[in-house]
Amino acid sequence: MPNPPNHLVIFQPSGRRGEVAEGTTLLDAARDLGVEIESICGGQQTCGKCKIRVEAGEFQKYGVRSSPDHLSPMGDAERAYWERRKIGDAATRLSCAARVQGPLVVTVPEESQARKQIIRKSATERVIELDPAIRQYYVNVTPSTLGDERGDWELLQAALRDRFGLTDLRIDLPALQTLQDVQREGKWRVTVSVWDDREVVRVQPGYAEGVYGLAVDIGTTTVVAHLCDLRTGAVLATEAMMNPQVPFGEDILSRISYVQSHEDGLARLNAAIVEGLNKLATRTTRSAGLSPDDITDVALVGNTVMHHVALNISPVHIGSAPFTLATYDPVDVKARDLGLTAVNRCARVHVLPCEAGYVGADNVGVLLAEEPHRQEEIVLVIDIGTNGEILLGNREHLLSASSPTGPAFEGAQITHGMRAAPGAIERVRIHPETLTPRFRVIGQERWSDELPAGDIQAAGICGSGIIEVVAELFARGIVLPSGKFNLDTPSPNFRPTERVGEYVLATADQTSTGHEIVITQNDIRAVQLAKAALYAGAKLLMARRGVDRLDRVILAGAFGNTISKEHAMLIGLFPDCDLANVYAVGNAAGDGARIALLSRAKRREAREVARWIDYVETAIEMEFQNEFVAAIDFPHATDPFPHLKGLLPPEIAEPSTDGRQAQRRSRRARVRAKSR
Amino acid sequence: MPNPPNHLVIFQPSGRRGEVAEGTTLLDAARDLGVEIESICGGQQTCGKCKIRVEAGEFQKYGVRSSPDHLSPMGDAERAYWERRKIGDAATRLSCAARVQGPLVVTVPEESQARKQIIRKSATERVIELDPAIRQYYVNVTPSTLGDERGDWELLQAALRDRFGLTDLRIDLPALQTLQDVQREGKWRVTVSVWDDREVVRVQPGYAEGVYGLAVDIGTTTVVAHLCDLRTGAVLATEAMMNPQVPFGEDILSRISYVQSHEDGLARLNAAIVEGLNKLATRTTRSAGLSPDDITDVALVGNTVMHHVALNISPVHIGSAPFTLATYDPVDVKARDLGLTAVNRCARVHVLPCEAGYVGADNVGVLLAEEPHRQEEIVLVIDIGTNGEILLGNREHLLSASSPTGPAFEGAQITHGMRAAPGAIERVRIHPETLTPRFRVIGQERWSDELPAGDIQAAGICGSGIIEVVAELFARGIVLPSGKFNLDTPSPNFRPTERVGEYVLATADQTSTGHEIVITQNDIRAVQLAKAALYAGAKLLMARRGVDRLDRVILAGAFGNTISKEHAMLIGLFPDCDLANVYAVGNAAGDGARIALLSRAKRREAREVARWIDYVETAIEMEFQNEFVAAIDFPHATDPFPHLKGLLPPEIAEPSTDGRQAQRRSRRARVRAKSR
Repeated sequence: MPNPPNHLVIFQPSGRRGEVAEGTTLLDAARDLGVEIESICGGQQTCGKCKIRVEAGEFQKYGVRSSPDHLSPMGDAERAYWERRKIGDAATRLSCAARVQGPLVVTVPEESQARKQIIRKSATERVIELDPAIRQYYVNVTPSTLGDERGDWELLQAALRDRFGLTDLRIDLPALQTLQDVQREGKWRVTVSVWDDREVVRVQPGYAEGVYGLAVDIGTTTVVAHLCDLRTGAVLATEAMMNPQVPFGEDILSRISYVQSHEDGLARLNAAIVEGLNKLATRTTRSAGLSPDDITDVALVGNTVMHHVALNISPVHIGSAPFTLATYDPVDVKARDLGLTAVNRCARVHVLPCEAGYVGADNVGVLLAEEPHRQEEIVLVIDIGTNGEILLGNREHLLSASSPTGPAFEGAQITHGMRAAPGAIERVRIHPETLTPRFRVIGQERWSDELPAGDIQAAGICGSGIIEVVAELFARGIVLPSGKFNLDTPSPNFRPTERVGEYVLATADQTSTGHEIVITQNDIRAVQLAKAALYAGAKLLMARRGVDRLDRVILAGAFGNTISKEHAMLIGLFPDCDLANVYAVGNAAGDGARIALLSRAKRREAREVARWIDYVETAIEMEFQNEFVAAIDFPHATDPFPHLKGLLPPEIAEPSTDGRQAQRRSRRARVRAKSR
Repeated sequence: MPNPPNHLVIFQPSGRRGEVAEGTTLLDAARDLGVEIESICGGQQTCGKCKIRVEAGEFQKYGVRSSPDHLSPMGDAERAYWERRKIGDAATRLSCAARVQGPLVVTVPEESQARKQIIRKSATERVIELDPAIRQYYVNVTPSTLGDERGDWELLQAALRDRFGLTDLRIDLPALQTLQDVQREGKWRVTVSVWDDREVVRVQPGYAEGVYGLAVDIGTTTVVAHLCDLRTGAVLATEAMMNPQVPFGEDILSRISYVQSHEDGLARLNAAIVEGLNKLATRTTRSAGLSPDDITDVALVGNTVMHHVALNISPVHIGSAPFTLATYDPVDVKARDLGLTAVNRCARVHVLPCEAGYVGADNVGVLLAEEPHRQEEIVLVIDIGTNGEILLGNREHLLSASSPTGPAFEGAQITHGMRAAPGAIERVRIHPETLTPRFRVIGQERWSDELPAGDIQAAGICGSGIIEVVAELFARGIVLPSGKFNLDTPSPNFRPTERVGEYVLATADQTSTGHEIVITQNDIRAVQLAKAALYAGAKLLMARRGVDRLDRVILAGAFGNTISKEHAMLIGLFPDCDLANVYAVGNAAGDGARIALLSRAKRREAREVARWIDYVETAIEMEFQNEFVAAIDFPHATDPFPHLKGLLPPEIAEPSTDGRQAQRRSRRARVRAKSR
């Protein structure tokens, strides 16, 4: 018998092409040509993941005429598939069913591409190839017959091996426990979720598309969870909560000391965060219309203390030199061993690696999200949280450090602070003449001066609001460079109390509590200490890295996407940099957790980078102490923002004639104008 | 520098010899010559496991003069080791410390041999090489210093790699959780237990020799656990209990139906056995003076229903054709996932494979213990329990089958039945003239006729006692071949009730309960059904295997070591075989669990043999039904025991003249004489 003729087949958008023997399915042709097309059912014409579109017409570029007629006609199974979905389009076919009968130009739509990509919107936009640890397979299992000495699990293994080439699989006990019922319920057709090509973690009856994971950033003050579709990378739900450990201590050192001083300290902290994680898993799945059973993978980041406590490891050894962790390597465990009950019984947890005693998996998350280790430019990444982590450098040499900022930027230790939740003041402006404020609360589109007082319902002030109000107070001269209130401030909102003073941001009728929201001298002091720690850390790393300027500054943090970079620079949160190259990227640690959830390659990269990065211990550096003390005041260099000058409207850039304070004031007015 | 001179070193008892360079330690010399010497500390002169004895004098056979002086003198560390133990003997040295300085004849005492062997006393005595899944390593960990970005786990990995060449290790979460405290408590010297060269399951501070495991046979009626020293193979404690599932059903079919008819049926059965296993673990460790934490490995056997229920898998699919298991393969899980709390948190469980729907891991245990798959001779192995399993064949072809014997042989479903525990009647003899009984109870050395009635304290009758009493009743003509009582029996202990009758085995004053222990017609019927099932199963397999005679019969079962093979043959428990080749080997399934606990090679062998063996489904064989019906009567062939004849004393072998019944009686008297 002669060989069948070959036909030229071109796949779009990759442009891969080749001669394919007549009768080959398009799915096989694609694989042979290196085009990865999605398939869950492995060619059973069931899942529809492999659908493609055949272009019709002359393609002079390739010298072919393509037509849907150059494919084998639809069989019953494929026709049934399309009819169930009420799709009747001769050009759209299942590539596992359609066989080549002539030259073809085939478009693989994005949803059918096996290695999907997600776009990370960040300082630098880029794509991440989806490669989650959990993959689904739909199989038809051949049931056993009398005298067959193979069990349900052996039969399933045979089916997965024969159809998908999966070998050396094991099955997690809870999945084995229900396997017999599930295979019978599905009439021997089941959808299998496999972790890392190694372990069956879920078996569902019939065809049950959908594989989901939870990416969690355990901050000292705030815990954020993203429920993700592992096949598309889409975030289906995001929920945040105050870290339930806050009552035991507001920062990591006080948590460590709680564990040290209470026999059941670790147990209580661990129980609190585990309960919190379970709540977040429940809330995200509920809001996405899924069941907790649907979560089969979890990626966790957190600073080293949060990391240890979540793993039920005592953090006390982090608290004293040499600040040692139980492990720096990534940790892969079963969710049930951590007490996570609101996820699938077989769910896996991947905890990202840590870099150093005080630079944890959250900072590795930031690395994955911002990739300073892949940049040519010198980048400063500041992750603003209760514990601030700093990265500085580029692909050649990257340094990290930790700065004990305290929880001020997360709204804690601030008189009327709260976390970024509905009702929190997140934006503040103070009028340069009247020195009265206006603000916007989360959940409202309009500013306070655009709403009746009773409709504002401000509940407190969150991190971004705190930075803005302090920057504005300073820019208006209400707060002096030393951080002290100017007791002569002629503002109706300023109330000089005995030798300190306070500023009324929201009046009682504007709040949901019926009490004023004020900024006190202590609040300003807390912000000063926090920003000085970050600034000093950045300066120390710059000295170590041997650079005196920054090409780019990235501000990350749970509230980072709403932070005003102008206000942040105004209070001196980081060393000088062209404002155009300063980016507020939001919760990069959480994004890093999400990236690790979606990509095994990124998990490997995280491990490598975490080992490669150079950690600088600020606590033992005299240089850090000196920089810190020097950075407590607000910046009052002769002209701290020369790069702002050209960006400012001329009327504001006009110099004042009223001596030094006026000069300063005008400079800040310029900044304000830009920041609107 | 010239090479150091070589010296001839001979190791005893292996006789391995070779030229060894001067200055080599004896431990290294042994390894080079293929002599495996134990070492936990890896040459730190701490564990003392590698001690050897140097012989003194001329060894003409080898042409050497050996002397303790041909070793390097003791250093401080080694001297300290011996002084702590108050041992001063120049000829006994630590092989890791002593260096070769002249020709030597070295004896490696048994306790220092790395691959220890245990002797299995069975039908065929043989040795099993110890190769447990858990091994201990004593290491000196180099602690971290400030700026060292390795955690406790990474440091421990480095130490295990450098000293023992262990790579790619992981650590189980509970061990990681306490690692930092343990390494500091041990001043960075720790003893590490590693499972299967892969996973750290225990880390203890300092030098902490001792690694233990639990081998468990979950019988339908009785659960037996052996606590073993994994380094020596010694059984440190054995505990048995009634299977706490018995209240839910006495045999496996009634357990299945309990699960089928109760929504929480599986949960209740599982909770019962898990609680039972925890009790056995607690009792065995307590009686051996150990802690439950010391158990790091568990090997489990049981029939398929016990297997599934212990794994919390529903057994209902075993209950109907095609009698499918969830899995036949061995199962490796963590003890905590089974709910085992009275063992180490990181303990592993290995469940032996199953052969067929009704031939479970217990029968694979019997295989490991008795090894019919390695024999030339045709062997019949009967494992007597509530579910009787039968093996027949040899190394060329081995068949297995299951026989639903019911729990009669375990003392259940018998009027005064009980399990083999103190107070149970285990031996019975009935006088041929007076037809009165005497018996012995477990826990007493003397027979009932040698003790005052009040001292006997019989509580019931166990399996071996049941077999003996029924055999004796039949041998004395009190029970007829049909199984019915001979209502004319002239015995003071026989009480003819309306058309049935019963035999008083123990009078009220001989029992601990103050009530008689009697054998009823129903009891005899239960024994008949049970023995017929085993006999019919064996006959079916013989037909299938194409053999009409047995070279050897092995009787196993929880009470098997006390079973009287003569009485068993007398009631027709198995087809005819030369009594000299019938062996009662005790709880072979439990012994198999113990072997699997002690040897990874045996676990692999179990898996292979379980797949290779041919299962015969008795339930669907007409032949089995026919054999079963034919085997219900007691044997009354013309001369069922021709091979006994020569063994009997002549006065008993004399033929009676009193017709057919007397003839039969005398035949049985002969058997009785032999059986004493």
